[in-house]
Amino acid sequence: MLPRFFAPDAAASSAIVALPDAEAAHLMRVLRLRPGDAVRVFDGRGREWTARVEDAGRGRASVRLETPIAAAREAGVAITLAMAVLKADHMDDVVRDAVMLGVAAIVPVLTEHTEVSARVIERGSRVDRWRRIAIASAKQCGRAVVPPVHGVLPLAEALKPAADNPRIVLAEPAAAGQQSRSMSQIPKATALQLFIGPEGGWTAAELELVRASGCMLVTLGAQTIRAVSAPLVAISAVRAIWGDL
Amino acid sequence: MLPRFFAPDAAASSAIVALPDAEAAHLMRVLRLRPGDAVRVFDGRGREWTARVEDAGRGRASVRLETPIAAAREAGVAITLAMAVLKADHMDDVVRDAVMLGVAAIVPVLTEHTEVSARVIERGSRVDRWRRIAIASAKQCGRAVVPPVHGVLPLAEALKPAADNPRIVLAEPAAAGQQSRSMSQIPKATALQLFIGPEGGWTAAELELVRASGCMLVTLGAQTIRAVSAPLVAISAVRAIWGDL
Repeated sequence: MLPRFFAPDAAASSAIVALPDAEAAHLMRVLRLRPGDAVRVFDGRGREWTARVEDAGRGRASVRLETPIAAAREAGVAITLAMAVLKADHMDDVVRDAVMLGVAAIVPVLTEHTEVSARVIERGSRVDRWRRIAIASAKQCGRAVVPPVHGVLPLAEALKPAADNPRIVLAEPAAAGQQSRSMSQIPKATALQLFIGPEGGWTAAELELVRASGCMLVTLGAQTIRAVSAPLVAISAVRAIWGDL
Repeated sequence: MLPRFFAPDAAASSAIVALPDAEAAHLMRVLRLRPGDAVRVFDGRGREWTARVEDAGRGRASVRLETPIAAAREAGVAITLAMAVLKADHMDDVVRDAVMLGVAAIVPVLTEHTEVSARVIERGSRVDRWRRIAIASAKQCGRAVVPPVHGVLPLAEALKPAADNPRIVLAEPAAAGQQSRSMSQIPKATALQLFIGPEGGWTAAELELVRASGCMLVTLGAQTIRAVSAPLVAISAVRAIWGDL
């Protein structure tokens, strides 16, 4: 398999396209490719081409697009993952895994039990970091789409854009109460918003809020699923039930 | 929720049961519990009780069983995960996640692309470590069953016990070829063996071997799933499709 690069400016065959700095560094310093070497290039919006390195040096690299090729099939359901911010490594894993499993977008969410403050997230340029991880994951897993990672929102804000699509909130069996459903009871849709809480779970007030906002509470079997693993389990379950895995 | 302890010798209500050393250390040094404190105890085979600390000191602890309580429901399908040994942290994550997601047993497997040698596994007492992680994961996720972690087997040996139950082998879309199925095409069963390869994938010879052994090749969508995440995705998908999540 040829090495793949993210070129958001790629548009038409035969064009010469400059790579973003991080991609140029990967091409030159890590893979040590030279002009003429064959690569693949994707635009992050679902299109992919074979290409050749046109120029590489002084920190910059460009490629010449050749033939459009069929990109890997995207997931059949557009899942927006609204994920409570987890501790550093764990949130990185969540972003990497969610992109690999085909989410359409990621919204980092602040909740009452979130252990990382908005200030720490900003000071650490975490959102930029997650965006870099989303690109790296798309390169690695073969996706030609790089899903957007939105800015961090408080839960109440993240709940505001009331969509027609189902909105589901993962909850632990003990917290969810009688009204919770299992994954297989979610009505099939072409898009879905999936809210997942932090290590410490949702507060009672937050569960009230999401219920009042029209979200469905959903549990994943009888066991307590770690927050860092919950997105993989939930996304896999939804895609599998709807015939997409 | 009361702290939970693994007591493999627990058998009948009212009995006083000594905890294994690691559990006693957790009870005394980490949680600093004292005689009379209320706890929960499970036997690792599916039974759970409320209990009270009977004695705690000099590195030993015992509990007196009180009332049997309903253990968390086990998965509806008994999945044996035959997992290629991954690098240290990753294999730990796989064991933790697989226990959390309800597997019935774990068989660590050596494959051609396994990057860890049998000698390193033995010298590092890795199997013992994975067994401790299985216990810790059961404690954390609420399972009353601790699934066995078997000794490490070469792939050919792991394939030998030919069972009536479906045996499926995860493969990448490019490697699986025309004969591969999706998860939703696996015939429903009460037990299943699931083989998952290492970071470097299966070799062509290994794919031949598993095919010849009557295994089904299965792919998970169009993307390349990281080896460390593949067990969660596959187990979630199987349980979800069969109405168990």
